[in-house]
Amino acid sequence: MQTYLDCYPCFVRQTLQAARMAGADEAQQRDIMCQALDLLGRHSVGTILSPPEIAYRIHKMVRKQTGVNDPYYEAKQVSTQRALALYPELKQVVHQADDPLDAALRISIAGNIIDFGYSQDYDLESTLKRVLAQSFALDRRAELRAALSEADRVLYLADNTGETVFDRVLIETLDVPVSYAVKSGPVLNDAVRSDALDAGIDLAAEVIETGSDAPGTILRQCSDDFRRRFEAAELIIAKGQANYEMLSDQGARVFFLLQVKCPVIGQDIGAPAGSIVLWQGG
Amino acid sequence: MQTYLDCYPCFVRQTLQAARMAGADEAQQRDIMCQALDLLGRHSVGTILSPPEIAYRIHKMVRKQTGVNDPYYEAKQVSTQRALALYPELKQVVHQADDPLDAALRISIAGNIIDFGYSQDYDLESTLKRVLAQSFALDRRAELRAALSEADRVLYLADNTGETVFDRVLIETLDVPVSYAVKSGPVLNDAVRSDALDAGIDLAAEVIETGSDAPGTILRQCSDDFRRRFEAAELIIAKGQANYEMLSDQGARVFFLLQVKCPVIGQDIGAPAGSIVLWQGG
Repeated sequence: MQTYLDCYPCFVRQTLQAARMAGADEAQQRDIMCQALDLLGRHSVGTILSPPEIAYRIHKMVRKQTGVNDPYYEAKQVSTQRALALYPELKQVVHQADDPLDAALRISIAGNIIDFGYSQDYDLESTLKRVLAQSFALDRRAELRAALSEADRVLYLADNTGETVFDRVLIETLDVPVSYAVKSGPVLNDAVRSDALDAGIDLAAEVIETGSDAPGTILRQCSDDFRRRFEAAELIIAKGQANYEMLSDQGARVFFLLQVKCPVIGQDIGAPAGSIVLWQGG
Repeated sequence: MQTYLDCYPCFVRQTLQAARMAGADEAQQRDIMCQALDLLGRHSVGTILSPPEIAYRIHKMVRKQTGVNDPYYEAKQVSTQRALALYPELKQVVHQADDPLDAALRISIAGNIIDFGYSQDYDLESTLKRVLAQSFALDRRAELRAALSEADRVLYLADNTGETVFDRVLIETLDVPVSYAVKSGPVLNDAVRSDALDAGIDLAAEVIETGSDAPGTILRQCSDDFRRRFEAAELIIAKGQANYEMLSDQGARVFFLLQVKCPVIGQDIGAPAGSIVLWQGG
């Protein structure tokens, strides 16, 4: 997906959030803001990058300026703890469901609310309740079921820390082995390997890395090994908005599970903000 | 009030809104965004301007780039028509109230929802219903009543077009002559003289101008005549957030009537976003 001008207020907001998460003082926040505005200015005309590519540059700059390698470290720890506290309830929901796969898909989508690119505030309990009852605005559940029944392995592209616990519940419900791909370095609250292990993903899936520390999955920045796995994958489950922004043109083997939190993505995917979506690449 | 870094996402959003209101195409919107980012970068360190002073520069730049003198002209016309359609109901509310002045103050504050610096979308009916019943988060109604009983004239600083109709209802309820100050040139959806006349303000008050086309009331940009009136005024009613941002240090003769729509102003004034406020300068 291209970057729309409507994305710019959000980049500016994310810059400030990241600077504060990294503990920058007021003067350093101003310096960082200044650099982000300059960066955005340079990318506002000419070659247009995708939103995750611009976010990647901003977060990298903030890490460099502050010298803090993982500004969201503590927030991520809290997210995982909160999600793990819900884990028994999530398992119970799947266990008691008439359609366990449907329940687990919804749970995985519910976890996508833990998105610091969108907001630092989230309410897991009320989101879970909503998503378990909500209609899908875009619905390829039948196609995903068919693909799951034929696939030998699923490549599962992780998104945020804490959401990992919700992903684990879905993975534990699948009958197919899963490779769970996390980032190779911190960016925003995206999950890295240690975040996935904290969620216990390794008990349910093989944990692999994209080779990149960019949000979403920017294939040309990924390792050769990951790209080979990506090319060879029969079935890919891609979580969250950033993966949709990067991979919507990667064919029908990619299924996107997300909450539409942003009106710009909503416009692009064809479902309003607030929707839950299980979409398939074209 | 100083400009906080938290204001920056909002400036970027306003830039895009103004460019679109002026009918700029995609390429021109990108040029305008680029210039706004540059402008914000230059003002993010060193001498810090107030939010209305930065907004003033942005909107002036958009008008210059597009050659459109009043980008919000049509939107303002619609706002006035919608507000005038409610005028009989507003008068009825005051007429039937046990405390007509209290009702009229609330009506004037309800009209402050028509603020394109905050959002293009507003619902007058539901806002009116809410504000007529809502508790004041900051409440100097008693002090304002006392000041009104002693003043020979009120200087009333207008804010947005359409809100003008709600102001008219308050002015018609006062027993004191009013001078109603509008901007001398278009900026955002702020009222200029013709907007005030469309609302019928001239039937209730003397309409005067600030001499400036800046949002809020930036005294050093106002005409000598207006500044003399401002200095001499015994009692000033200042509407909206931008007037609060500029005039909160102008003494106890200034009463601020507004809806707190922005969390940054909320933090500064000491009342959460969503509040209604009748505050007094210090």
